[in-house]
Amino acid sequence: MNRLLSIQDYVTGLQTGDIAILSKAITLIESHNFQHQLLAQQLIDALLPLTGNSVRIGITGVPGVGKSTFIESFGMHLVTKGKKVAVVAIDPSSSISKGSILGDKTRMEKLSVHPNAFIRPSASGGSLGGLTYKTRETTLLCEAAGFDTIIIETVGVGQSETEVSTISDFFLLLMLAGAGDELQGIKRGIMEMADGIAITKADGTNATKAKSARAEFANALHFLPPTNSGWIPEVKTCSSYENTGIKEIQEMIEKFIQHQIAKGFFESKRKEQNLYAFRRLLDEQLKINFLAQPKIKTQLLELEKQVVDGLISPYSAVSKVISKP
Amino acid sequence: MNRLLSIQDYVTGLQTGDIAILSKAITLIESHNFQHQLLAQQLIDALLPLTGNSVRIGITGVPGVGKSTFIESFGMHLVTKGKKVAVVAIDPSSSISKGSILGDKTRMEKLSVHPNAFIRPSASGGSLGGLTYKTRETTLLCEAAGFDTIIIETVGVGQSETEVSTISDFFLLLMLAGAGDELQGIKRGIMEMADGIAITKADGTNATKAKSARAEFANALHFLPPTNSGWIPEVKTCSSYENTGIKEIQEMIEKFIQHQIAKGFFESKRKEQNLYAFRRLLDEQLKINFLAQPKIKTQLLELEKQVVDGLISPYSAVSKVISKP
Repeated sequence: MNRLLSIQDYVTGLQTGDIAILSKAITLIESHNFQHQLLAQQLIDALLPLTGNSVRIGITGVPGVGKSTFIESFGMHLVTKGKKVAVVAIDPSSSISKGSILGDKTRMEKLSVHPNAFIRPSASGGSLGGLTYKTRETTLLCEAAGFDTIIIETVGVGQSETEVSTISDFFLLLMLAGAGDELQGIKRGIMEMADGIAITKADGTNATKAKSARAEFANALHFLPPTNSGWIPEVKTCSSYENTGIKEIQEMIEKFIQHQIAKGFFESKRKEQNLYAFRRLLDEQLKINFLAQPKIKTQLLELEKQVVDGLISPYSAVSKVISKP
Repeated sequence: MNRLLSIQDYVTGLQTGDIAILSKAITLIESHNFQHQLLAQQLIDALLPLTGNSVRIGITGVPGVGKSTFIESFGMHLVTKGKKVAVVAIDPSSSISKGSILGDKTRMEKLSVHPNAFIRPSASGGSLGGLTYKTRETTLLCEAAGFDTIIIETVGVGQSETEVSTISDFFLLLMLAGAGDELQGIKRGIMEMADGIAITKADGTNATKAKSARAEFANALHFLPPTNSGWIPEVKTCSSYENTGIKEIQEMIEKFIQHQIAKGFFESKRKEQNLYAFRRLLDEQLKINFLAQPKIKTQLLELEKQVVDGLISPYSAVSKVISKP
């Protein structure tokens, strides 16, 4: 990292939409250096009044569904309409490889060079507060820098697909046509978390199959419980290749946001998400402090083994490592 | 509570299937008295070798779906086949009202007086380890007393529907026919947790509607991801009134159990559940000890308010109440 800027330098730079400063700020919050972390948290606190003015869209789907090409088309549609679009990716690997940044930028050829777009993977691996915590902070930085649409892309590994719903306003699931097979890679629980589904690659000889998949999924979603706000998830088809259906997906998201605002769920969901992030971080810090005691870690591993094998009750095991206040 | 028995008295009593002793043991584990809790945990540990030999069936559904009448028919079918059936209900209210016990027994007229059946609500309110922890221990006591089928009924309030899946082998969702309306009371996430669905009240003029609902739900489930073990949830219709479809549901559960055993998922799921119970209890105890510090509780409430309103970052808020090790 280059020399550290002051909080005021960062704030001023972000307020003027300086992309170089935004990149530096993201690097700062991702740093594992203790001094950097302190500065990063002061920065986030200072920026909070400048954040929140964006629509946060979480996007997931199995590898091969065409996430990058979809985001390229979708992002280009948004910037053409005058939106400022930031794409952040949840990357569970512990370090940012230049390759992955380059990879994303190569796959999003037009979007990556557009003046109103910003693409950046987010290194979340091993961070306190779960996979999405650093991505959450990256989102806040992008908002402070004036981006009004934040696309949060998951790499579709481990827990990241489900966790993205804890930091996004709208959760879009990308699916392939072809009943049955396409579900193999999707984890249970994802379908019921989606606010909308887009069936990708609905072009050429695949178009008819995509249309009938759309009807089938829409019918299936009808048999799932509605969201708390009463929103019934919609299913759309799209083709990044033919650039069709993209506008309709953007309209669906806009309709959803209007619905959430009208019902009072837009703000309340974000407040819940703030509380969730706090409680999760607190729980983790308590556990970290607990495990920092000598011998606890080894003892815990042994006890977990006994609990798993049904040799000791969970309650007795807890009593062995922790005393009542 | 009557005089306390010794651990050996309880163990011997349970091993001979003494129902009076079983009732006393359940009362013991539900007691909030510290001495009772110590004894209860010694008892659970002593009983562990005698537990695990049952099929644990979690049953949920919205009020009005006919849970009690279903359990009456289903339980009678099982005892007629020579099974020993215990019915425990997760009751999120903090105290057991005699009314609710009486209520259950009245609603399960035949089952409640059958020598091979045992019905008991489980007071889970406010217990450490979540809503289901005491129910989990009640299940172990019933197993030690020789019951080979444990039906865990949720009252369908708050979190209990989802939590029951953390202590059951098979999770059965009861649904009413009549597309759309019946979903209003079902929480999101439940459908994807179910190992099977039974459409109740499939009798009289309702029979046709139930049959078509069955086909529609089966089709919808086809569009949900399969379970880890590859089991695809099935949908059945039944009538407690005409006593039809009950046998088929029991066969579905048996088929599921065989499938799980064959794939190695029966044991691994239980081991995961043990670990989950332990980790959850440990987390809770850490939090309880933390909150037992003077002033922390008030400070936490104030900080949560600030976090929710976006005035302070979760990270900064955590730093204010907790120091790094």
